[in-house]
Amino acid sequence: MKPSIPKGTRDFTPVEMARRNYIFDTIRGVFRLFGYSHIETPSMENLSTLMGKYGEEGDKLLFKIQNSGDYMSGLTDEELLSRNSLKLASKFCEKGLRYDLTVPFARFVVMHREELQFPFKRFQIQPVWRADRPQKGRYREFYQCDADVVGSDSLLYEIELIQMIDMVFSKFGVRVAIKLNNRKILAGIAESIGQADKIVDITVAIDKLDKIGLDGVNAELADKGLPQDAINKLQPIIKLTGSNSQKLDTIATVLAGSENGLKGVEECRFILDGATKLGLNNQLELDLTLARGLNYYTGAIFEVKALDVEIGSISGGGRYDNLTGIFGLPGVSGVGISFGADRIYDVLTQLDLYPKEAQGGVKVLFLNLGEQEAAFCMGLLAQLRAHGISAEIYPDAAKMKKQMSYANAGAVPYVAIVGSDELAQGVVTLKDMQTGEQRTMGSDPFVSFFTEK
Amino acid sequence: MKPSIPKGTRDFTPVEMARRNYIFDTIRGVFRLFGYSHIETPSMENLSTLMGKYGEEGDKLLFKIQNSGDYMSGLTDEELLSRNSLKLASKFCEKGLRYDLTVPFARFVVMHREELQFPFKRFQIQPVWRADRPQKGRYREFYQCDADVVGSDSLLYEIELIQMIDMVFSKFGVRVAIKLNNRKILAGIAESIGQADKIVDITVAIDKLDKIGLDGVNAELADKGLPQDAINKLQPIIKLTGSNSQKLDTIATVLAGSENGLKGVEECRFILDGATKLGLNNQLELDLTLARGLNYYTGAIFEVKALDVEIGSISGGGRYDNLTGIFGLPGVSGVGISFGADRIYDVLTQLDLYPKEAQGGVKVLFLNLGEQEAAFCMGLLAQLRAHGISAEIYPDAAKMKKQMSYANAGAVPYVAIVGSDELAQGVVTLKDMQTGEQRTMGSDPFVSFFTEK
Repeated sequence: MKPSIPKGTRDFTPVEMARRNYIFDTIRGVFRLFGYSHIETPSMENLSTLMGKYGEEGDKLLFKIQNSGDYMSGLTDEELLSRNSLKLASKFCEKGLRYDLTVPFARFVVMHREELQFPFKRFQIQPVWRADRPQKGRYREFYQCDADVVGSDSLLYEIELIQMIDMVFSKFGVRVAIKLNNRKILAGIAESIGQADKIVDITVAIDKLDKIGLDGVNAELADKGLPQDAINKLQPIIKLTGSNSQKLDTIATVLAGSENGLKGVEECRFILDGATKLGLNNQLELDLTLARGLNYYTGAIFEVKALDVEIGSISGGGRYDNLTGIFGLPGVSGVGISFGADRIYDVLTQLDLYPKEAQGGVKVLFLNLGEQEAAFCMGLLAQLRAHGISAEIYPDAAKMKKQMSYANAGAVPYVAIVGSDELAQGVVTLKDMQTGEQRTMGSDPFVSFFTEK
Repeated sequence: MKPSIPKGTRDFTPVEMARRNYIFDTIRGVFRLFGYSHIETPSMENLSTLMGKYGEEGDKLLFKIQNSGDYMSGLTDEELLSRNSLKLASKFCEKGLRYDLTVPFARFVVMHREELQFPFKRFQIQPVWRADRPQKGRYREFYQCDADVVGSDSLLYEIELIQMIDMVFSKFGVRVAIKLNNRKILAGIAESIGQADKIVDITVAIDKLDKIGLDGVNAELADKGLPQDAINKLQPIIKLTGSNSQKLDTIATVLAGSENGLKGVEECRFILDGATKLGLNNQLELDLTLARGLNYYTGAIFEVKALDVEIGSISGGGRYDNLTGIFGLPGVSGVGISFGADRIYDVLTQLDLYPKEAQGGVKVLFLNLGEQEAAFCMGLLAQLRAHGISAEIYPDAAKMKKQMSYANAGAVPYVAIVGSDELAQGVVTLKDMQTGEQRTMGSDPFVSFFTEK
């Protein structure tokens, strides 16, 4: 039997895991620095928690878990022979695998609301599962890295989340553009030109300016049913240029009649000013074409693009005002961001940005040149490890060539050699695998060599 | 709708996660120190990989995932109406959730054998799922923490694994007994008294010595069909006492005629001598009643018991000679250990052994006493975070009482206060929440206070 794994899933080898851990550790470190607390939720949720939360398409993409025991009992012949696989799934299955971290988080907040202190800042780094058609860069099991705060509508959190994005990518050494938009501005625009229901069409069309030009955008707007006077009023928005502050001034003029729209402008101004004053390493720009999760977000919308690699957004998020309402706890405002670990992995690989430490592996390998020699090495090994220096010994007195090829495959920086001569004198020969240099020394200087570096 | 989670699963709150992370980080740290590399495998495996690997009972306990799309097509009316839920499950489902980390690891080794360098030392810390009846301390989703090395039969690895167990529990501050046995000794005993097929009955009976006494054990052996002369020959083994070395001498006498048995004695002697010479913090004892995974292990068997808490084994493992054979790669010897995170959690909780750092939370909370004041604090916050000091600000200028109760709930050690007076002077008042002491200082000394500790 030749083993395989389900399509759309992956094994992670030591080299891949070392890189992934570098990514997760960096993100987790920033989450903690900003006071976000770690939680985890079960991989499986009741289907009643998940169904209907991701649209009709989402329901189909849920992985459903068959009930244990006799899952077919209680079904009539008619039901069975209907072969209605979607309807029967709800009889066969009560549980499903987590589709994202947001709905389980909402469920968590509602279930634990008595124990939690609000505002509640949490992060969560766990896999999610989607029965999507697998393709390059899209998997059926992948990790999400989310940080959210619920129970406050303070815009300081928007500023904080932008700082977090900036810090994460600064640590990675990836240059990014952080894009900001606001649902209230978009709603205000659509509203102020009398086209409140066309908000998505308008945003999608403006987004194409670079590709199809001004005439193209206007043609598409007309095509979507916007009257000419509405299109005319939109021109300053479509042609929006200048600094963030200049853009906001222009928008404020267009939105003069929309209370909601002006509130969005004010929010953006506060966030942009606040974040800029604190000194970001990356550019932060107002981008009205950002429509990410438009039906879901109610205030700020974030998205992050890598500047030096062609790839989709590598982080994003926004403010939502009624996340927990679906589970019976209305009026809890929240804002959050999510980092796309798989895309960040690709970006760091392409730009060759993994630090040396992200290679994993031990600091030193002891060669095994015989039973007595190995016993001597085991003592040194124990000393190194007691000092927190990762080290190992080759398990058998195999041929030198075999042992050295093991050292090379593991990219071990140092090899320690104790042959019969060294054993007799109680010394160790230390070989620097990069330079090829060899030095013989006593046990104490040997241990110090590693602990004092 | 009142939300709930599937029975046998758990949410982990920030306090629980901080403790769990302390456990995982400690174990992971020791795994790395000894040169074990991190891998991960997908949560779902093909059922063909999992089925038949855990016995008939195990097959029933696998969580099966329903195929996406029309999983009912191609089934005849007869098949459907048979309501044979077990047989139909194999039509409805191709995938299942991982039941342990061992079978996926074997599958991994076989699939990646060309890329791996042997001996291959890997660790894996991931959840597993079992459709067991949930009860106190038994969950349907729980983490396993495994370290194994495959591709070598060197006993240095047995010694190393014992050192790892010793180091992990020393770091936790938990006193344990590390018990060692060897499948070859057990087989040798059964063989040398002419009862090779009664090996399990013999081990189980001897295990009851403390509870039912010598007469009870002998009665049970007779009850299981052992002839009197075989029982007589067993007496020195049942009454085995003394140091590890004395016990081995006694066993060697009984096993004089069994080559395999004597090999087991020699292996135990080498492992016990080697590990003891390196200086363990915990007791290591030969225990012939250890029968853990008897059908599976072929050499050393390990088990760890906490000395100060009544609980089952908290770690265990052993050597197996044909793990990858089921996937077409015979002759690969391996040895490994597994730490039971949930039981260790209970032990550490019961003995109150979590260090302060395992509480999580930020070092300092800035109170929010107004927009200007908050803006000033945001600058200080950014400086602290740039130095790696975790910190946060209360998001609104809420009542002092509310802000302080947030600080107390988060067990924040320091609170920073910038009111209008402080703002005018560009200073901060720092309150030590443990002593209640307050000091007012400039920005630079404030930052230094945290960075220089």
